[in-house]
Amino acid sequence: MLDRGESLTLLAGVSVGQVVFTHRALPDVLPVNFRLDGDAVVIRVATGSALARVAEGAVLAFHADRIDEAARTGWSVTVVGRVAEVTDPAERRRIAELPLRSWVGDGRDHFIRIATDRVTGCVLA
Amino acid sequence: MLDRGESLTLLAGVSVGQVVFTHRALPDVLPVNFRLDGDAVVIRVATGSALARVAEGAVLAFHADRIDEAARTGWSVTVVGRVAEVTDPAERRRIAELPLRSWVGDGRDHFIRIATDRVTGCVLA
Repeated sequence: MLDRGESLTLLAGVSVGQVVFTHRALPDVLPVNFRLDGDAVVIRVATGSALARVAEGAVLAFHADRIDEAARTGWSVTVVGRVAEVTDPAERRRIAELPLRSWVGDGRDHFIRIATDRVTGCVLA
Repeated sequence: MLDRGESLTLLAGVSVGQVVFTHRALPDVLPVNFRLDGDAVVIRVATGSALARVAEGAVLAFHADRIDEAARTGWSVTVVGRVAEVTDPAERRRIAELPLRSWVGDGRDHFIRIATDRVTGCVLA
């Protein structure tokens, strides 16, 4: 098991993870670009997407891992936390300057912050 | 969007995905080795692990993706389906011969089949 600090350090070193959410009453998973901003996970999502409609204050799971299958090693970190859209204009401008590319299309003008209320991580070896 | 056949073909070409399940009343995500066996996802889990305790008949989400961040392309497939442990001895022997490595430790003697009741996939471009 990894502690919170170790887990967040690993998250800081990667930029693609998966968000788990409920869509039409069923679990769904989507890969997302993300950045660790302070101790929150920030993702950028498109207007009108299922993710953008996740209710403010809902609890989401976010996951990232890095696996070296040949070496049979890797790590896995899962965050569970409340969701809040970043609406403050100054904060939006600051976050827009993070290297948070939207490689899954244009028009992604929502920034969503996922609090790291619970962080679990493990090393796979 | 990808149709069911296209999504299953993509799953057949990779061997690491993520399972989404509920652990202590909170969502959790774990990377797993898997194989597509017919039209079901088969994973191998350790006795005593949280995944092995997922109730028979529960509905799990399973996800795999392949992302080329530099090229800004990739795909993402999510399966939602009922879980059943493989208990038939002949079936267990057959599945034990699949290239389903347990790089996350020894003692993984449960084979879990996740039905592909619902398959959604998309190309990220």
